[in-house]
Amino acid sequence: MQYKNDLFLRAAKGEAVERPPVWLMRQAGRILPQYRALRGKLSGFKELVETPNLAAEVTIQPVDELGVDAAIIFSDILVIPEAMGLPYELIEKVGPRFPRTITSKADIEQLISGQSAAEELQYVFEALRITKKELDGRVPLIGFCGAPWTILCYMIEGSGSKTFSKARKFLYQEPELAHQLLEKITSTSIAYLKMKIENGADLIQIFDSWAGILPFDQYQTFALPYIKRMCDEIQEAPKTVFAKGAWNSLEQINKLDCNVVGLDWNTNPDFARNILGKDRVVQGNLDPCVLYSNPAEIRSKTKTMIQAFGKHHIVNLGHGVYPDTPLENVKVFVNTVKHLEYSELDSEVLDN
Amino acid sequence: MQYKNDLFLRAAKGEAVERPPVWLMRQAGRILPQYRALRGKLSGFKELVETPNLAAEVTIQPVDELGVDAAIIFSDILVIPEAMGLPYELIEKVGPRFPRTITSKADIEQLISGQSAAEELQYVFEALRITKKELDGRVPLIGFCGAPWTILCYMIEGSGSKTFSKARKFLYQEPELAHQLLEKITSTSIAYLKMKIENGADLIQIFDSWAGILPFDQYQTFALPYIKRMCDEIQEAPKTVFAKGAWNSLEQINKLDCNVVGLDWNTNPDFARNILGKDRVVQGNLDPCVLYSNPAEIRSKTKTMIQAFGKHHIVNLGHGVYPDTPLENVKVFVNTVKHLEYSELDSEVLDN
Repeated sequence: MQYKNDLFLRAAKGEAVERPPVWLMRQAGRILPQYRALRGKLSGFKELVETPNLAAEVTIQPVDELGVDAAIIFSDILVIPEAMGLPYELIEKVGPRFPRTITSKADIEQLISGQSAAEELQYVFEALRITKKELDGRVPLIGFCGAPWTILCYMIEGSGSKTFSKARKFLYQEPELAHQLLEKITSTSIAYLKMKIENGADLIQIFDSWAGILPFDQYQTFALPYIKRMCDEIQEAPKTVFAKGAWNSLEQINKLDCNVVGLDWNTNPDFARNILGKDRVVQGNLDPCVLYSNPAEIRSKTKTMIQAFGKHHIVNLGHGVYPDTPLENVKVFVNTVKHLEYSELDSEVLDN
Repeated sequence: MQYKNDLFLRAAKGEAVERPPVWLMRQAGRILPQYRALRGKLSGFKELVETPNLAAEVTIQPVDELGVDAAIIFSDILVIPEAMGLPYELIEKVGPRFPRTITSKADIEQLISGQSAAEELQYVFEALRITKKELDGRVPLIGFCGAPWTILCYMIEGSGSKTFSKARKFLYQEPELAHQLLEKITSTSIAYLKMKIENGADLIQIFDSWAGILPFDQYQTFALPYIKRMCDEIQEAPKTVFAKGAWNSLEQINKLDCNVVGLDWNTNPDFARNILGKDRVVQGNLDPCVLYSNPAEIRSKTKTMIQAFGKHHIVNLGHGVYPDTPLENVKVFVNTVKHLEYSELDSEVLDN
């Protein structure tokens, strides 16, 4: 496929680029007036996720409006548990809720998994095909899923939580069942991501949103091996792993067969570069709250971050953009990156 | 004052001890049947906090039932905003809520602060005096407060939050007002802690529960300087600083004039010792979910942690004990530490 702008893919693959590419996690969403207008006409978030031409429409909105260097398919990580047999609801202003949760071996055995579960998600694949066609090569398209540990969190806990202590309890009390469930989530996620790639995703990103609530040893036992399996088995497209809060496992994450390491806003560039080395492609990690600030500060903090990471950097926030972020400020962020050239920046800093 | 058991204080001051002392954050609470029995008779959590003889009773319950090496006065960090003029409610199963929040300079100017605000909290001081008398030197008594940044979070946000993006937005949009508010919280907290010490607290602990949501530069600007001022101005008793999630500022925290550095369960002992050195007294940091496990695993993980930290360690969890933790398991944890002697453990590891 010929891209009009393939900066994002070239950077992800570690190639030399003239400037860092830029996109935002959650760029398709409430920050855009055209999204809010469409969303207001619908019964709920799930209708948008499950209606391919609408999902495609909101996926492309930030490419039109913000001029970002990549699109990310509009969807939700919780489509995976639903495809496995555990449906979710999204309660406005509260968050996700599962009417049934996993509490026993029988519950786990009842779940479908692998290819047959992934096949349930035809609406996602159709959304990818429509998006791909409508994007017409303007920018690459990112597909994504949750990491197995993060998906397990919701399947056990049944909702969001500050501590996910129920899910974490399950790891200590039922380690074998936890592994059994993680296996099923992993095989489903692998099949799902492969089908996403077949249907047009140019790169896939794995979100381990709840990485940061596990201590080091638990993360090594219950989280990382499953991400490793996903990275090893998916060879059809470049991969990004974003394990939020997993600073203490960064050395192990660096050993994964993935192209890009996503970083949250707590991870100092020097800490990351010290562990990852200067050639590892990183993605992130401006504090999303910087975009509440004024244009001068947004420009300054964005440039400082780019200088600190040096080359091999995909610019993004360190978390999804918050829904009430002023659109003009998001544009200042994107345009700061787009109007910058590596040659302008202090080359001594960048080559470090 | 003569203590029957002063292990905790000796360890906090860096003195050599025969075994590490042990206590648990949130040890006075729902894990104890005697607490639940008392709580069931009351209108709410606040009645317990505000009734000195009841607060004293639940403070002492874990000393009786668990045999911990320290008591911590039963209270809430949100008494400070209330004393300053911003009352809070505690909604069962939801959490704290402030009917009014801080939104403007006028709101901040209206707050009382310093000694006169601290004086509002007579019920806390009375609870300390009663506890001190009833403890009769069995173990030392810990007083505490929230760090200024954490208190600001609630005063701006008005409730708990996963992101505290409203509070973080305030730092970027109104940095001067944020400093003004932090000043007022700090002066109140200092006066409050000094009065706690006068009324019987043997050590004070500062909880920066939301340290982990600030990026490094913001933590250096809006959080740490106020903790530093508290540590510098309070010289009447030993001090513990527990900044949850502030792994990226551990080097700066180590420079504070405090006796003990509290660590959360994500902070690996080797990471911490590498920054803090082997002589810094640390407190923590077992994953609270380990206590959902079985006795053998609780013993094993507790011993592994003690060996990894070496001497100068106060044993605790890396977070408050979760309310549904089985009491028997909490006892296994406490007794593992109490039946241990440093001389038993691999001395080579401990001296490292």
